[in-house]
Amino acid sequence: MGEMCDRPKNTNVRLSLPAVCIVWQTAMIILFGVFIRYNEESDTHWVEYKKENNIPSDIENDFYFRYPSFQDVHVMIFVGFGFLMTFLKRYSFGAVGFNFLIAAFGLQWALLMQGWFHSLDYTDGKIKIGVENLINADFCVAGCLIAYGAVLGKVSPVQLMVLTLFGITLFAVEEYIILDLIHARDAGGSMVIHTFGGYYGLSISWMLYRPNLDQSSRLQGSVYHSDLFAMIGTLFLWMFWPSFNSAITDHGDGQHRAAINTYLALASTVLTTVAVSSLFQKHGKLDMVHIQNSTLAGGVAVGTAAEFMLMPYGSLIVGFCCGILSTLGYIYLTPFMEKYMKIQDTCGIHNLHAMPGVIGGIVGAITAAAASESVYGAEGLINTFDFEGEFKNMVPTKQGGHQAAGLCVAICFGIGGGILVGFILRLPIWGDPADDNCFDDEPYWEVSHRSVHL
Amino acid sequence: MGEMCDRPKNTNVRLSLPAVCIVWQTAMIILFGVFIRYNEESDTHWVEYKKENNIPSDIENDFYFRYPSFQDVHVMIFVGFGFLMTFLKRYSFGAVGFNFLIAAFGLQWALLMQGWFHSLDYTDGKIKIGVENLINADFCVAGCLIAYGAVLGKVSPVQLMVLTLFGITLFAVEEYIILDLIHARDAGGSMVIHTFGGYYGLSISWMLYRPNLDQSSRLQGSVYHSDLFAMIGTLFLWMFWPSFNSAITDHGDGQHRAAINTYLALASTVLTTVAVSSLFQKHGKLDMVHIQNSTLAGGVAVGTAAEFMLMPYGSLIVGFCCGILSTLGYIYLTPFMEKYMKIQDTCGIHNLHAMPGVIGGIVGAITAAAASESVYGAEGLINTFDFEGEFKNMVPTKQGGHQAAGLCVAICFGIGGGILVGFILRLPIWGDPADDNCFDDEPYWEVSHRSVHL
Amino acid sequence: MGEMCDRPKNTNVRLSLPAVCIVWQTAMIILFGVFIRYNEESDTHWVEYKKENNIPSDIENDFYFRYPSFQDVHVMIFVGFGFLMTFLKRYSFGAVGFNFLIAAFGLQWALLMQGWFHSLDYTDGKIKIGVENLINADFCVAGCLIAYGAVLGKVSPVQLMVLTLFGITLFAVEEYIILDLIHARDAGGSMVIHTFGGYYGLSISWMLYRPNLDQSSRLQGSVYHSDLFAMIGTLFLWMFWPSFNSAITDHGDGQHRAAINTYLALASTVLTTVAVSSLFQKHGKLDMVHIQNSTLAGGVAVGTAAEFMLMPYGSLIVGFCCGILSTLGYIYLTPFMEKYMKIQDTCGIHNLHAMPGVIGGIVGAITAAAASESVYGAEGLINTFDFEGEFKNMVPTKQGGHQAAGLCVAICFGIGGGILVGFILRLPIWGDPADDNCFDDEPYWEVSHRSVHL
Repeated sequence: MGEMCDRPKNTNVRLSLPAVCIVWQTAMIILFGVFIRYNEESDTHWVEYKKENNIPSDIENDFYFRYPSFQDVHVMIFVGFGFLMTFLKRYSFGAVGFNFLIAAFGLQWALLMQGWFHSLDYTDGKIKIGVENLINADFCVAGCLIAYGAVLGKVSPVQLMVLTLFGITLFAVEEYIILDLIHARDAGGSMVIHTFGGYYGLSISWMLYRPNLDQSSRLQGSVYHSDLFAMIGTLFLWMFWPSFNSAITDHGDGQHRAAINTYLALASTVLTTVAVSSLFQKHGKLDMVHIQNSTLAGGVAVGTAAEFMLMPYGSLIVGFCCGILSTLGYIYLTPFMEKYMKIQDTCGIHNLHAMPGVIGGIVGAITAAAASESVYGAEGLINTFDFEGEFKNMVPTKQGGHQAAGLCVAICFGIGGGILVGFILRLPIWGDPADDNCFDDEPYWEVSHRSVHL
Repeated sequence: MGEMCDRPKNTNVRLSLPAVCIVWQTAMIILFGVFIRYNEESDTHWVEYKKENNIPSDIENDFYFRYPSFQDVHVMIFVGFGFLMTFLKRYSFGAVGFNFLIAAFGLQWALLMQGWFHSLDYTDGKIKIGVENLINADFCVAGCLIAYGAVLGKVSPVQLMVLTLFGITLFAVEEYIILDLIHARDAGGSMVIHTFGGYYGLSISWMLYRPNLDQSSRLQGSVYHSDLFAMIGTLFLWMFWPSFNSAITDHGDGQHRAAINTYLALASTVLTTVAVSSLFQKHGKLDMVHIQNSTLAGGVAVGTAAEFMLMPYGSLIVGFCCGILSTLGYIYLTPFMEKYMKIQDTCGIHNLHAMPGVIGGIVGAITAAAASESVYGAEGLINTFDFEGEFKNMVPTKQGGHQAAGLCVAICFGIGGGILVGFILRLPIWGDPADDNCFDDEPYWEVSHRSVHL
Repeated sequence: MGEMCDRPKNTNVRLSLPAVCIVWQTAMIILFGVFIRYNEESDTHWVEYKKENNIPSDIENDFYFRYPSFQDVHVMIFVGFGFLMTFLKRYSFGAVGFNFLIAAFGLQWALLMQGWFHSLDYTDGKIKIGVENLINADFCVAGCLIAYGAVLGKVSPVQLMVLTLFGITLFAVEEYIILDLIHARDAGGSMVIHTFGGYYGLSISWMLYRPNLDQSSRLQGSVYHSDLFAMIGTLFLWMFWPSFNSAITDHGDGQHRAAINTYLALASTVLTTVAVSSLFQKHGKLDMVHIQNSTLAGGVAVGTAAEFMLMPYGSLIVGFCCGILSTLGYIYLTPFMEKYMKIQDTCGIHNLHAMPGVIGGIVGAITAAAASESVYGAEGLINTFDFEGEFKNMVPTKQGGHQAAGLCVAICFGIGGGILVGFILRLPIWGDPADDNCFDDEPYWEVSHRSVHL
């Protein structure tokens, strides 16, 4: 009887999904029409702007500083996150397809939300965009894709669109508070992206707790080739993470240093992940879950401090610790959280994003507090921490405190926002699947008529 | 009896394929030896050229403006097109393998053909090449790969080589007429690449019509993992399309703006594709065919106008419309064309390339005709539309007419060329498969001895 | 009885693998702490350095010259090599996973080893690193990944770590001798990377010869989709090889020319590979092994000469020959070497790396010897061959001799080093699999509980 009450959920999204897509996309067009224009570097007036500002060459256009990194970040968002989640044996279409959908929507909404806070030209009330805005929009989307990892397989595409709409909105506010009001630095988004996105997703998952999820346990594993598809995601995330952490840092040494630090932290993480994975399994066999996920934790944890003088060995140490903690998280914490805390975290985002994000925030705070003119040089210190304008009297120790404050804001926004949005997503109107129908592409994708299903 | 006459086709290409490859490659070597040299930016005399022309730094070498975009385009050609076509359950080797073969041949022939028209140094009769030529060669190849999509699974590799030889030749002539004689602008190739390639492939498919193709209907579907492989192609095309449309636009704002416009158009397309796919299926389920293909239509349709002041909202509108039209095309037009027009379009290139290409040409004509000094700035207008030299008296409205003329040329070359080449491909000497042997790797690939064939 | 003695090998690496990972990673941290710092372009003092050296813009930071190429190389190392080896039906986890592990370790050790030889700042005894060091570390790792190809499926991860430790060490010494002492040029590493790595792997494989390897013959084939995964590796290697060969060449024309030459050589190789593959198979069918591997031989063989004035047709000729030779190698040489020379070369690295590497070395020697001021220009000749400092009296013909000497050194280090390391790897302590357990992920990966193993 309980099961019968449970089962007849309506997963037909034939009206709701098209309605949401068409209406929201139309809203985007209208808002873009009212608000968004090209900035001086992507507008045809660039040729005059160049002369007026004595810019000697087109190569000084920000496009050439950031476009290669932007494309790498773009790959991380769509192939990286998308394929990382294809590991489930029967939910690969949903993983890569819904990731595609919500990222494509989210980046438009992010251009508006972040634009209002950061790129509004007060002379004409327009948001002026260039390549840096595209990168930031991709970053903003990453927060929501992280959250998707926690609820993978248990929600409808309409719920994901709602999750994204609110997620982007919360992100933009949180980011504004952390970066502009608190003046914390967070180049690779350890706090702003990973901590926020992680706790946002975990809180939603907690709100959407399904006590009878074991009814779909037959679908919760992977198959050999779905694990290989997931490795495509893992590797593109891993390889391009140096671009992620350096994409919006300062021109010159800022981008250069952030890339080096991230490259090193990630290399170190791979070794400790393998070590712990082997050590804690019977017979010393490696677990693909760890290799797919924990190897990335170092990139998350070095996000804030990547642009600082963390030093190459500092990056290795951060990666070293995160590989261990993240893998242990998969072994002990995820089952614990599911059993005792009612948090069902499909992809283990706590171990890959939330916890390493917090570590990254702490590392950033310590590194900032320990900064000195002897290491950074007088000008270097000002440049790196942006001790200019109203913050020109800032000192490193105080900056460390601001970094810590930023971390707290990210956690609060993640948890608070997740609970709020989780509440909305519990409304019985979104077409989410029944417990025995989770982790299955069948409710939302035409699979039967065209495939021998595995 | 009819079937018996039909069946004994000889698919053995053991002589013809090696002969074509070796002879044509030898011809390439000879022609390259006679005609092709490095240009001033890739020659060792660059160091002297730099001094003579007061170029202050190596960073001004065109390599640094265009190489990142070139590599993105290169990925689209080989991984993008190649994997997009792997969706068939038993024709994935042919999809990615023959794509590889004809692209590798085509780019060499394209360097020659385009070189004679565009990069011939009349002082010594040599074609001088640099990174921009490599990009254009890849573009030229794209036209033939699009055409391959229409005949996928129904032709032999030798036929594909012939299709490519003629396709590249026609492309180079058509491109010269459109860009140089008519002076139309077409940065992302909506007309030159997609319209031409689309109609070229459709016409060939019409000439090669197989009334009994349903004999291989058991092979015409996908399987779960072949659809995932195809998503690799989709996503790399989608992500790198901004590089495609901006790869050969003007340095500075031109590349910057083209990338932004394409990024936005593609995002918008995803949402309307999802909407229409869900709305027109029973139970609102999404169809992978649409997600794999129609999500890309916005990139095609924004190709011509990407470098213009299309405005961010303009890009969104173009993407919005194309997602809808392309998906409806897959639902209604493709079956209609197969049934009533005898056009069997395996990949639906009409919906992904031909139709969005035509839309792109029209959008380009309108945008060009509507251009004004108040929006572009005096210098910006001249720069963007290249109103210089013999075209210095050109005005936007007239340019709009020229754009429209260019579109007509592309359509004519596509249809005319396709009929001509289709006629040649009907000769019974090319080793094409029998009707019940289509969509199968077995005739051209060693598969049996090394794989459990799914 | 023989079999019973053979079988009870202990593949449990639960202690050895974690121990190696943790201890070596800790050693890396300590050594990095003592030795490695940022160089002037990645340090916060860059802003002051810029002023002191009259560098007009941040865009002159080497990061912007090399970072796009670096990321392409990075993709080749992790996705290219990793997925190229996934073709075996049951060893895909080991292919991509152990590739990941040893590359992540190797690049750290390479930064140290290469740093001591090339980037040591004698004023403070520190190695100063920037983006070029990252590229070189990836290059260094490539040598070991090539060697992995020969022993794929027959060794334990601990053995691979040992192979890498010694491989990187030998590489750094060999590279120093060839490039610095002998003053050979080797931009794309035909000699330094491919010849060395190839013979290193083949010698190890010879030392580890398994006479009863046919006991695992049931696992030695591919399946349909594993061949497709391997094509991902092939294509990313093929597409990004121009970046590989141009990543550390001279700014400006050097990078530009190296990319063009490699692009052309690879295109040519595809056609002759297809020709030979079809011609030498019954019924003219193509073999995926050739398409996956031999199509890359042209990139290897043009490695040394890519930065020279090889001329576009010269590149095509090199690619032409290598496609033929490499494919014939797979057809005739690999079986011959296994049967008569006791070299079991799982991936056929002899045909893809060792032989094309030697060809590349010879091509480089001839091209260098034939260089002249009339072709290169006076300054161009000096720049290209670096005839400066203690080598300012060098002439092209002599340089040709030095190139040949470099090739010999690479071969000797490869063979000698491989025999030495093979001897170490034969110790019965490394947890390698029994003969009937080769080419199987089961000994080292948790596969049974989570996958229907095909």
